[in-house]
Amino acid sequence: MAKVNLKELAQVLNVSISTVSKALRGSYEIGETTKQRIVAKAEELGYTPNPYAGFLRNHKSKNIALIVPELNNNFFIQAISGAESVTRSKDYHLLVYCTHDDAEQEKKIIHHLQNGRVDGVIMSLSSNTTDYSHLNELQLSGIPIVFFDRIAYEIETAKITTDDFVSAFNATEHLILNGCKKIAYLSVSKSLSIDLKRKQGYLEALNKYNLPAKNEWIIQCNNEEKNNLKKIKQLLQSTHKPDAIFASVEQLALNTYYVCKELAINIPKQLKLICFSNLQTAPLLNPSLTTIQQPAFNMGEQAALILFKHLDKKRTSIPNEHVILKSTLVVRDSTKK
Amino acid sequence: MAKVNLKELAQVLNVSISTVSKALRGSYEIGETTKQRIVAKAEELGYTPNPYAGFLRNHKSKNIALIVPELNNNFFIQAISGAESVTRSKDYHLLVYCTHDDAEQEKKIIHHLQNGRVDGVIMSLSSNTTDYSHLNELQLSGIPIVFFDRIAYEIETAKITTDDFVSAFNATEHLILNGCKKIAYLSVSKSLSIDLKRKQGYLEALNKYNLPAKNEWIIQCNNEEKNNLKKIKQLLQSTHKPDAIFASVEQLALNTYYVCKELAINIPKQLKLICFSNLQTAPLLNPSLTTIQQPAFNMGEQAALILFKHLDKKRTSIPNEHVILKSTLVVRDSTKK
Repeated sequence: MAKVNLKELAQVLNVSISTVSKALRGSYEIGETTKQRIVAKAEELGYTPNPYAGFLRNHKSKNIALIVPELNNNFFIQAISGAESVTRSKDYHLLVYCTHDDAEQEKKIIHHLQNGRVDGVIMSLSSNTTDYSHLNELQLSGIPIVFFDRIAYEIETAKITTDDFVSAFNATEHLILNGCKKIAYLSVSKSLSIDLKRKQGYLEALNKYNLPAKNEWIIQCNNEEKNNLKKIKQLLQSTHKPDAIFASVEQLALNTYYVCKELAINIPKQLKLICFSNLQTAPLLNPSLTTIQQPAFNMGEQAALILFKHLDKKRTSIPNEHVILKSTLVVRDSTKK
Repeated sequence: MAKVNLKELAQVLNVSISTVSKALRGSYEIGETTKQRIVAKAEELGYTPNPYAGFLRNHKSKNIALIVPELNNNFFIQAISGAESVTRSKDYHLLVYCTHDDAEQEKKIIHHLQNGRVDGVIMSLSSNTTDYSHLNELQLSGIPIVFFDRIAYEIETAKITTDDFVSAFNATEHLILNGCKKIAYLSVSKSLSIDLKRKQGYLEALNKYNLPAKNEWIIQCNNEEKNNLKKIKQLLQSTHKPDAIFASVEQLALNTYYVCKELAINIPKQLKLICFSNLQTAPLLNPSLTTIQQPAFNMGEQAALILFKHLDKKRTSIPNEHVILKSTLVVRDSTKK
């Protein structure tokens, strides 16, 4: 008989995956009766990996995996450098994996790491990851995860993000104070935590200044460039076109530059542009790009430090902890009055 | 008694490391007498790893390592993507290592890989790597290497580069045809093969058009930004300042933009600028940057395909082969007449 996986076990028990995961790890959040019921069913159905084995694992691969959705992105490159500065000082190796922003690839990589070739994982989710059972399973196999930037609130562990809500609020307010009244928001994903926070900050700022939050100005983009270029073009050719764009990620701002070039729209005269970005060439663009710059190096560094704090104590279970670092608004010509 | 390493063995025998390496791998390039002398001395001094063990190794880590000098560089990011497209199709994992352009880090990583955690290595050298014994040792331990871009001619294996000489010649000629007479060259390393080829192409073009090749116009930069900015500034403030700069790598062109901004030098009116680069934002810069664009994705892909061709045949020794791919000159505003 094939053994059940975590998801199937949760279905049989009619509880959430998170509850099963917590119960098997002995979390105080789960009542004793429920715990016993779950442990008994797990044994009955032959659920492995044994969570207790994880705690006894002798960490010695001397490898840490860092999983990012994309590499062609300065934010992730800087975060990798930050994490690597820590792993190097600990005489560990950092193995970099890229999911190409694809949940299926993410699952494959996580599965591959489960056999003990790494002592811990630092990761940022793919934009289409909505099922977290592969991450629960990795934790249960005794390999701790620390999230940065694109996090899963549902998974109990440490998470490092920036103050996305506040930064997005400030960015939108900056546009408003520079005279913009019709501000569009380019969203990169419906499910990503960071995108939701950024959109909330944008909406809150509009609300504060009694500006309209039109649905047609909230553009749902994805990770396909062709689709995004088309949507941005439609937006900028529409009757009710915006006077500013707030792009949730760098790539969408670069797409906007290309569309403006094609349509001969002058930035910042006809359209102001701001985005979350750690682009090295932001000051050299035509016009230079106003950005919300995240402390990417620091985020990678913090994530690795927290991971090692637990590895050093031979703990594989990291309690919930949310570290929030501040981003910086760097004003340049793309939002000039 | 401590066992000797490859370098010490070569010293005792008074031959080059490359000769020892080739002899132990049974290369046809080494005479039978020399071979026997080397094998005998290797056995006498207890030299390991046994080269024959390598041929028998059962490749099954299902990992390929890709080693690059830097990650904050579109060329390498695209090459990684190319290699990964192949490893993925073969159901292998690609582990990315970064040396931060430091020969010592490169040695540490190579040493770390020698224990069989990868089946093969694809790499681009650090700019200060001048001793190749760590690479010879890796090959002798049965792990094949394929080089791309920053290659070591001395190591017998497959190498993928672009047509650096021809591309540099064309780039320099492009500047000359657009009216430049005083062309400076920014070199990134004295020892890197690609830099030497590019400098040769530059000199050859100057020679063809009877233009001076002044020593003061060949600027020796390195991987320290502060140093490079200072040198470029000195160049552009000197009495005999150039009317064009040909940067051997992208980073040096970006440094030039910053120096020109500071000194209020207009590109392309007062100074034309061209460089080897795969920068995504090259068309968006102010002014847009004329580049020699390398087929980076294709280079990574080719390197991986050659590696797998030999892994599939359970060969660990890859014969010399030099694949040269063509780069493309993309003319933009920074070299406008």
